[in-house]
Amino acid sequence: MKIHDTPGFPNPARIRIVLAEKGLESQVQFVKVDLVGAEHKQAAFLAKNPAGVVPVLELDDGSYLSESIAITTYLDNLDGNPTLTGKTPKEKAVILMMQKRADDQLIDAVGIYFHHATPGLGASLQAYKSPEWAHREEWGNKQRDKFVQGLKYFNQVLATQAYIAGEQFSIADITAFAALMHADAAGIAIPEDCVALLAWRSKVAERPSVKNRSGQAFDAEDLRSLGF
Amino acid sequence: MKIHDTPGFPNPARIRIVLAEKGLESQVQFVKVDLVGAEHKQAAFLAKNPAGVVPVLELDDGSYLSESIAITTYLDNLDGNPTLTGKTPKEKAVILMMQKRADDQLIDAVGIYFHHATPGLGASLQAYKSPEWAHREEWGNKQRDKFVQGLKYFNQVLATQAYIAGEQFSIADITAFAALMHADAAGIAIPEDCVALLAWRSKVAERPSVKNRSGQAFDAEDLRSLGF
Ligand SMILES: N[C@@H](CCC(=O)N[C@@H](CS)C(=O)NCC(=O)O)C(=O)O
Ligand SMILES: N[C@@H](CCC(=O)N[C@@H](CS)C(=O)NCC(=O)O)C(=O)O
Repeated sequence: MKIHDTPGFPNPARIRIVLAEKGLESQVQFVKVDLVGAEHKQAAFLAKNPAGVVPVLELDDGSYLSESIAITTYLDNLDGNPTLTGKTPKEKAVILMMQKRADDQLIDAVGIYFHHATPGLGASLQAYKSPEWAHREEWGNKQRDKFVQGLKYFNQVLATQAYIAGEQFSIADITAFAALMHADAAGIAIPEDCVALLAWRSKVAERPSVKNRSGQAFDAEDLRSLGF
Repeated sequence: MKIHDTPGFPNPARIRIVLAEKGLESQVQFVKVDLVGAEHKQAAFLAKNPAGVVPVLELDDGSYLSESIAITTYLDNLDGNPTLTGKTPKEKAVILMMQKRADDQLIDAVGIYFHHATPGLGASLQAYKSPEWAHREEWGNKQRDKFVQGLKYFNQVLATQAYIAGEQFSIADITAFAALMHADAAGIAIPEDCVALLAWRSKVAERPSVKNRSGQAFDAEDLRSLGF
């Protein structure tokens, strides 16, 4: 299998953490996509993922999977023992629900803020970010507000349970964790009164899949070095 | 089980079609939510789904599931024979990927257009739709353009395969079908050159789960009667 992605970015980090959780790292080869140079908006990449975003998983049969939840579901089910996406119908459903909330309210919101209300990844890419739309910065700022509201929601959830989808660690935690790291890099502070959320974050940061990534995992410094 | 929803609306229709596909209709009780009166933005409903949208599935243990993909995954796995969300790791992943594209590019895009760039469901609900945001109509119109782009993408997909996620009918088809009905009601025409998409639509419309819903399924007339 191949992963087309860019090290240091939050959605790619989700899949790198999934690979580590599942012990699958040695089975994939990484192919680097030049996000700053807008390689992901050119025809060769769009043929792999028409949405023009990373990560993309290339299977050995030559087909491509995109969307982190889809890639995770594939990798998590390969060994017949899904540990990140649930086993029972209810576990699967609750994880998908919370994972979608983490996508909508956290990781996508901070991404839109970053690309639309800040200089994002610089000039080459901005050409693809609706430059004709006069109000995109205002829209980006609304997404930052949505993200901060989302933090409060997840803080409430974590006040009564160990992880975002219940008592078990899941892809919903990975998504939220990656979103918080993107927020750091984008300069959005996590409110100090989000006590349960901050405690959860420290706990997740200690997982070997997150901690021992020797430069492969999301790294706020990597992102900053790209022009923040 | 109980479904809290509003008949005639596109996301509720997804779950009603799923129930019919799975032969589960007799096992649920429907509780009507007054969307026009903004009941879904009041505390009692927000406790069931903090996102303030229908449908919501109430399980017999008193817990609530929201997000149509999560509800579908629950219902589809109850009998140990998932027919709408995939059996193998690759089937599951491809369906989730295409289903997410149908959410992002079709059903959510047309919903945002409807609520932000048209009078939507009227005055009571508009108070909850960012009335302070001067540019929400422009943003809504951008979502209509995104929807039309999405139609072209799905038309291309359907030019080479029978259904949206491959040769099998799946939740991705249900989502796209419900989105097209919402578009009808919202006055967005499906371009005539989307030949493969229109043929697929006629085929899906003939499924018993869609055809024989005796007024329970999504109905463009129902929506129009609400103030279009
Ligand atoms: N919904 C996608 C989101 C992927 C995404 O937004 N990736 C970012 C990197 S973290 C990207 O490729 N951004 C480039 C761009 O927006 O141009 C997923 O779940 O994988
Ligand atoms: N992502 C949700 C979307 C649900 C949704 O948008 N439902 C609409 C009815 S079709 C709604 O409740 N709209 C009310 C509103 O936006 O205020 C899902 O998958 O169920």
